[in-house]
Amino acid sequence: MRILGIDPGSAVTGYGVIEARGGRLRHVAHGTLVPPRGAALPARLAALHAALRDVIGDHAPVGVVVEQVFVAASPRSALVLGQARGVALAAAASAGLPVFEYGPRTIKLAVTGSGAAAKAEVQRMVEALLALDARPVPDAADALAAAICHLRAAALPPGAARGRARGRGRRAGRFALRLA
Amino acid sequence: MRILGIDPGSAVTGYGVIEARGGRLRHVAHGTLVPPRGAALPARLAALHAALRDVIGDHAPVGVVVEQVFVAASPRSALVLGQARGVALAAAASAGLPVFEYGPRTIKLAVTGSGAAAKAEVQRMVEALLALDARPVPDAADALAAAICHLRAAALPPGAARGRARGRGRRAGRFALRLA
Repeated sequence: MRILGIDPGSAVTGYGVIEARGGRLRHVAHGTLVPPRGAALPARLAALHAALRDVIGDHAPVGVVVEQVFVAASPRSALVLGQARGVALAAAASAGLPVFEYGPRTIKLAVTGSGAAAKAEVQRMVEALLALDARPVPDAADALAAAICHLRAAALPPGAARGRARGRGRRAGRFALRLA
Repeated sequence: MRILGIDPGSAVTGYGVIEARGGRLRHVAHGTLVPPRGAALPARLAALHAALRDVIGDHAPVGVVVEQVFVAASPRSALVLGQARGVALAAAASAGLPVFEYGPRTIKLAVTGSGAAAKAEVQRMVEALLALDARPVPDAADALAAAICHLRAAALPPGAARGRARGRGRRAGRFALRLA
């Protein structure tokens, strides 16, 4: 079971691919997607869509995990985050993949044992759990942590906290075009 | 000069295609894009991306116009709007089209003569300016109004208010993949 975690952002999007084999987590790939310096917003979002399509094509995950967003500092920052997040969700569903969402506390709890863990602790535990050679940068660590959370939740007995599935495993339906 | 206006929304996205010929506006098409009832968010966003790609393919506009967003009622509604807006911007830039943005007051002013016009007044003026057979629904009217604003601004002398161009006319650059 191979899972892609995505941490969408307008400046940097982290991603991480891991799989579960015989109850053990195995690291496949991770990194960050960074738009060309100075590119305008629509071009950055189009490049993010294309890059995620490539990551999905290269690694063939069976599901995508993103962090739920509960709060944002301001409507402005929520709009900016939403734009990148929408592109990431569309890229996943365009590839026919189910998308799972977990809250930030659930992810931290699954990875570090504490729902209030600091970013550095998440990075350290992701490095340790996946036996990485180096500490992943924060955006990639958050993406890997989301994927770890999903694989650990999948291993839990029924009734334990699970991610909310959205857009399960079908190609996206076509829009109804209402011509006026 | 054929222009596509888009009014992105999580539930309904309006679009309108018009062109300027010899200083006159000509209506080409308009309508609304409505996701399949009950589809999950990622599938709705993927369907929006595909539907906009089809609209662009069918009508071959040379530019896309969207309304600037200055405020939102709450971070939650800004996130929801941002997700649809990001997909629309990515679809435009993926097709190699420049994206122009105008503020809501500028669009209303260009279409009705008043920056504070009510929605019904925008619908009425869009119907009249484009000599439509029927009143367009609000989302499609807003999309047509954005396109009208751009074509009228393009006809203005240099120095007059113009939309801010974003992501001009080039295919989106590829992301740098930073493998950690």
